[in-house]
Amino acid sequence: MSKADYYFGELEGHPVGSTYASRAEAMAAGIHRFAMQGISGSAGIAANCIALSKGYVDDEDHGDWILYTGAGGKDPKTDRQIADQEITQYHNASLVYSEEGGLPVRVLRGHKGEKPYAPKVGFRYDGLYQVTRHWAEQGRDGFRIWRFHLVRLTPDEARPWTPAGQRPATGPVGDADFRADVAPPTSVTYEPSAEAPAGNPAPHRATGIVQRIVRSSRVAKYIKELHGHRCQVCGLNLDLPVAPYSEGAHIRALGMPHNGPDTHDNVLCLCPNHHVLLDKGGIYLDDHLIVRDHAGNELGPLTVVNGHDVSLTHVRYHREHHGFAS
Amino acid sequence: MSKADYYFGELEGHPVGSTYASRAEAMAAGIHRFAMQGISGSAGIAANCIALSKGYVDDEDHGDWILYTGAGGKDPKTDRQIADQEITQYHNASLVYSEEGGLPVRVLRGHKGEKPYAPKVGFRYDGLYQVTRHWAEQGRDGFRIWRFHLVRLTPDEARPWTPAGQRPATGPVGDADFRADVAPPTSVTYEPSAEAPAGNPAPHRATGIVQRIVRSSRVAKYIKELHGHRCQVCGLNLDLPVAPYSEGAHIRALGMPHNGPDTHDNVLCLCPNHHVLLDKGGIYLDDHLIVRDHAGNELGPLTVVNGHDVSLTHVRYHREHHGFAS
Repeated sequence: MSKADYYFGELEGHPVGSTYASRAEAMAAGIHRFAMQGISGSAGIAANCIALSKGYVDDEDHGDWILYTGAGGKDPKTDRQIADQEITQYHNASLVYSEEGGLPVRVLRGHKGEKPYAPKVGFRYDGLYQVTRHWAEQGRDGFRIWRFHLVRLTPDEARPWTPAGQRPATGPVGDADFRADVAPPTSVTYEPSAEAPAGNPAPHRATGIVQRIVRSSRVAKYIKELHGHRCQVCGLNLDLPVAPYSEGAHIRALGMPHNGPDTHDNVLCLCPNHHVLLDKGGIYLDDHLIVRDHAGNELGPLTVVNGHDVSLTHVRYHREHHGFAS
Repeated sequence: MSKADYYFGELEGHPVGSTYASRAEAMAAGIHRFAMQGISGSAGIAANCIALSKGYVDDEDHGDWILYTGAGGKDPKTDRQIADQEITQYHNASLVYSEEGGLPVRVLRGHKGEKPYAPKVGFRYDGLYQVTRHWAEQGRDGFRIWRFHLVRLTPDEARPWTPAGQRPATGPVGDADFRADVAPPTSVTYEPSAEAPAGNPAPHRATGIVQRIVRSSRVAKYIKELHGHRCQVCGLNLDLPVAPYSEGAHIRALGMPHNGPDTHDNVLCLCPNHHVLLDKGGIYLDDHLIVRDHAGNELGPLTVVNGHDVSLTHVRYHREHHGFAS
């Protein structure tokens, strides 16, 4: 582990469009840590770079946004998926750290990548991207893969690939939402043992990345009132001086790529803690609506009431896309 | 209590700009419930209308946004504040319900209001606004008042007041943020006993109002890691499969009107539940950094660690602006 593993952002002397004859050269320059692997990250530390070399059949390169496949589960001989990928293994976890921490990820494109974004020869540093979310799905070879959605941090900057090939930047994961909300850092040196950051005594406006957006809707309002704002997992009712507060959690998430419906059978009334746990795969529901932690331990039954039927279809979708056995 | 109390939005036959000779006439039309009071709401139900008639010296009308003063504490003879206002009393609480529920509030301007927004005679319905936040402060008469920030829901719509007088809509409470994030309903019939709303099986994109935005920053990241993502109030560490999750809570809020700094002495590492409680005045810290609920009951000491000093100045600011005795 070197100090460079804690640096996230553009490297001095390596502006967007810098080229490298080989992966080894990009590695020597500090762009990417590894010669063979796609994700340049370590357990417990965010990833500082990903390489796009068409190593996984499920990768999708759209220039300004990327659907990237996690690592693992491949047969080194045939290069095909022969097992499920694990989010906690290889460097997949490091991309989750990037997402949670809002840290920029360098993108290195190789000549074997998708046209028209791939360079004709060698490798090219194409700028900083941000991981906006991740989910599990069945890959083309029939095994579970983890998908990471990344969007370019500087959409207005000149692109190093052929502009003619640029498709409109309407990604599948609510890019407009994302772009409007986020003012991400373009370079962060982050070392746990480093001194406390000086901070900003007078931030011009609410600063930093958006860690989480909680939305409500008429359906959510109805479900929350029906449960008296009590969490359906733990029964908690936040003790506030005036209006009650709870959150309407969509079991199958709204928006791309999940496209869950805003209907009462897809909404739970949860406290903020259990909402985060549901959204991030810390808990799931089994077919008997028993709440379980991510290790499968029983936490207790979901509180149910008359007039609020929970859809098993959405419950199963949630399990599948968080990588739990369906 | 009539059915109209549960209807939030524009009334049929009463478009923006409709005029009424008197408060009684506006009342008869169903625009506002009361002839004398500013806030048209009930305990436990959101407000459907506010009247702007310069009843409170602290009111500020900026056309597209309004700083509105809560009710109570006035001497009926002198019309001056002679006591603190209470957020749970009069109709103040109903505006908190409007804020939490994301429900639109009709605005009725009277001829005694501020120029150039007030009508020359009588009263005028000026459209729908949304309550974005509320806080306590000392009013001009020296007593605690509650302030509500409202912004116009349809900024592109023709304004019924003299356009020349319109100041730029750069409100003091992060309007740009608010506008970008919110796609609010312009009319909601909400009755607790009504049938379940049909919902939307295929929402075009993430729908509804933004209930809550959690931001992070480099300072927040540092403080969260310093505490190992354990909540400084309850010690909870959310059990997630990969990256830890906690929230950096600013004691004195970022952005207008509070303008808290993004510095480590103004940030706590909290679980989502205690973050909501801190932000919404469900808990506060005393001068010994003991966590107390809003009734003043001791919940236990805040967890403190070396290298993270919490500013008493910000702790006191938080108390004052949530209406707790400083």
